Amino acid sequence: MELYEHYLDSLAKVAVHVGLGLQEGQELLITAPIEAVPLVRKITEYAYKAGSPLVSVLYDDEAAHLLRFQHAPEASFDKAPQWLYNGMAEAFQAGAARLHIAGSDPNLLGGQPPEKVARANRARSLAYRRVLELITTHHINWSIVAYPQPAWARAVFPGLPEQEAVRKLWEAIFKASRLDTPDPVATWKAHNQHLAERVAYLNQKRYHALHFKGPGTDLLVGLAEDHLWAGGAVQAKNGVVCNPNIPTEEVFTAPHKDRIEGVVRSTKPLSYLGSLLEDIEVRFEKGRVVEATAKSGADVLNRVLQTDEGAKSLGEVALVPHTSPISQSGLLFYNTLFDENAASHIALGQAYGECIQGGSQLSPEELEAKGANRSLIHIDWMIGSSEIDVDGITASGQAEPLMRKGEWV
Amino acid sequence: MELYEHYLDSLAKVAVHVGLGLQEGQELLITAPIEAVPLVRKITEYAYKAGSPLVSVLYDDEAAHLLRFQHAPEASFDKAPQWLYNGMAEAFQAGAARLHIAGSDPNLLGGQPPEKVARANRARSLAYRRVLELITTHHINWSIVAYPQPAWARAVFPGLPEQEAVRKLWEAIFKASRLDTPDPVATWKAHNQHLAERVAYLNQKRYHALHFKGPGTDLLVGLAEDHLWAGGAVQAKNGVVCNPNIPTEEVFTAPHKDRIEGVVRSTKPLSYLGSLLEDIEVRFEKGRVVEATAKSGADVLNRVLQTDEGAKSLGEVALVPHTSPISQSGLLFYNTLFDENAASHIALGQAYGECIQGGSQLSPEELEAKGANRSLIHIDWMIGSSEIDVDGITASGQAEPLMRKGEWV
Repeated sequence: MELYEHYLDSLAKVAVHVGLGLQEGQELLITAPIEAVPLVRKITEYAYKAGSPLVSVLYDDEAAHLLRFQHAPEASFDKAPQWLYNGMAEAFQAGAARLHIAGSDPNLLGGQPPEKVARANRARSLAYRRVLELITTHHINWSIVAYPQPAWARAVFPGLPEQEAVRKLWEAIFKASRLDTPDPVATWKAHNQHLAERVAYLNQKRYHALHFKGPGTDLLVGLAEDHLWAGGAVQAKNGVVCNPNIPTEEVFTAPHKDRIEGVVRSTKPLSYLGSLLEDIEVRFEKGRVVEATAKSGADVLNRVLQTDEGAKSLGEVALVPHTSPISQSGLLFYNTLFDENAASHIALGQAYGECIQGGSQLSPEELEAKGANRSLIHIDWMIGSSEIDVDGITASGQAEPLMRKGEWV
Repeated sequence: MELYEHYLDSLAKVAVHVGLGLQEGQELLITAPIEAVPLVRKITEYAYKAGSPLVSVLYDDEAAHLLRFQHAPEASFDKAPQWLYNGMAEAFQAGAARLHIAGSDPNLLGGQPPEKVARANRARSLAYRRVLELITTHHINWSIVAYPQPAWARAVFPGLPEQEAVRKLWEAIFKASRLDTPDPVATWKAHNQHLAERVAYLNQKRYHALHFKGPGTDLLVGLAEDHLWAGGAVQAKNGVVCNPNIPTEEVFTAPHKDRIEGVVRSTKPLSYLGSLLEDIEVRFEKGRVVEATAKSGADVLNRVLQTDEGAKSLGEVALVPHTSPISQSGLLFYNTLFDENAASHIALGQAYGECIQGGSQLSPEELEAKGANRSLIHIDWMIGSSEIDVDGITASGQAEPLMRKGEWV
């Protein structure tokens, strides 16, 4: 238990001071799985010590979600708690910081009918839209950290007894989040600096497209006009510098939604809201998915693609070296927060306004005109590995090597 | 554990079908202490089986409240999560039913400065006002049931090991809530019928005042013009019949805020938001408290009285026979849901609109003109015992015996 106390304390401290950059006088709204109570309490303590006047927590109980799928009327799956999301939007608009604690059971809804899952997700996405916009446009400082709840730990370490699995997942989160150093706050400062240098290099290059090549993949991803690369720390509109993801290893930008061509194969399974999608293979024409298969979860994938027009195109392309600590762990976390930082990836759906120059001042229509994709969804999936090469394609069509065998050249 | 499963199942069933009368297609919003997860899940299951499209739960973590008192800036105690209460009000206005699960630690804030506690409570009351109005005016069907969380069980059974205390509190809640019968739903139907008969008798009498007499008490409580007695089941404005409190033993009405005279002594300790108030003695003149003392918690009491003008007068007077199952248990629950049903009582603060004829159609000013009290607070405290007599005083000043030695005559 001493060990966990150390994990809890370090993670809580980094969440408040690096992840959020929580300000004196700033309210905090935490969303968390109910299993994460010990971490939430520790974060609450650090938040109050940092001068927060009020910390509010919305707990999520996955067992209750499952009860809904098992017992609620068939006709009711298009409902979502709009009143709660309206309240959350009000909190963020009034300046509250936002912390989410990740760690859901990747298999929770595996046995449920994909059509019901899709309806529930679509209803939630629609009701949550305003909240998501406030978050993705960085209206306030926000962050996501992870807690190793038992169901997640069992999925990552299926052969181990539960307690042992939780212990190993704690260790893995700790290493991946760069907390296993004498001064994690200083470690994160240096890490942010490295990411900032990579971002500056790519922004100066102004590539017209990226070209991914490897087994099953030959994909040209056009980049949006006036695209910006980002990665690591972000300055929110309220002026606060935060780290939205802990851990984070990626640098990323916005594709051009109409200039994506070729085939791409996923290199890791994707856990999407309780379903597991494996060996995804997709073909793009003129920026749209025209063919999609998967060894498992193909029906979920095809329903996701039909969410709206933008669900068939890409909102993000991200580069992650194969030597990142998460990739080196050799673990599959079944959680995007970790797995997206183990490999280069793309995301179906909504683009980030911050990935377009002056994006925060542009209307959705103006962003779209530059090629930034619009959708209710944003789903990352991994396409990088030690076998993938990436070139930057200049405006004149010249290829410049960026990554070879998954590493920066 | 089998035993608890039986308790959970019976209580959940009665909460959904007697407490709430939850309707097919009706959303449900539950507020609960985080320790009550097992009961919340069982209630969620019964709610979905009854045809609810969506059950949402707002969990409350008392440990986090304490962290606030220990670590948050002194200047920040006038903040409350207005955004959350706005969301709740929106849910109730849209027709969601409301279930609260009681069971807080009566000693939680005992060691905190009363001034800070009072400021936090006042801020919460102000922010919560719209929600409370929707509940007290029965805009929707609602109910409160109890869950024996460990800190509460330890307070009720201070001599016992925690597990044993929880087991005994489960038993006590079960008996007090009339669940220890072959068919609890039928038992509640009969109980509601008895209360309805008592209410009908008192309403037909049209008493001008009640007179309480016993050790330390000689109190005349004028009744509001057009007052109505109530008790047991209630028909909410949405037409649904619900039982707002489980358990409930009281019949109650609205005093006239300007016609209360004399002295009254509490007969049980009052647990108020984490502080314990014992041996309260109060003197009324022209409906207002002019003197107030208490053996413990006197400072909290005096701060409460200063919340607003209405905090010094009464919003409720209730009659409970000394033979009620709760009184017979001989237990002090340190929780109003139970203790107010062990004895006749009065409440400082807000009156219920339902206790005035046509009250739901009257403005706050019109209700006030009939003598109904207005305040941000509503705090019940016990003044009945086996030594208390109660008379009804007719318009012509004649005394008719209602209770002798705590029993209906």
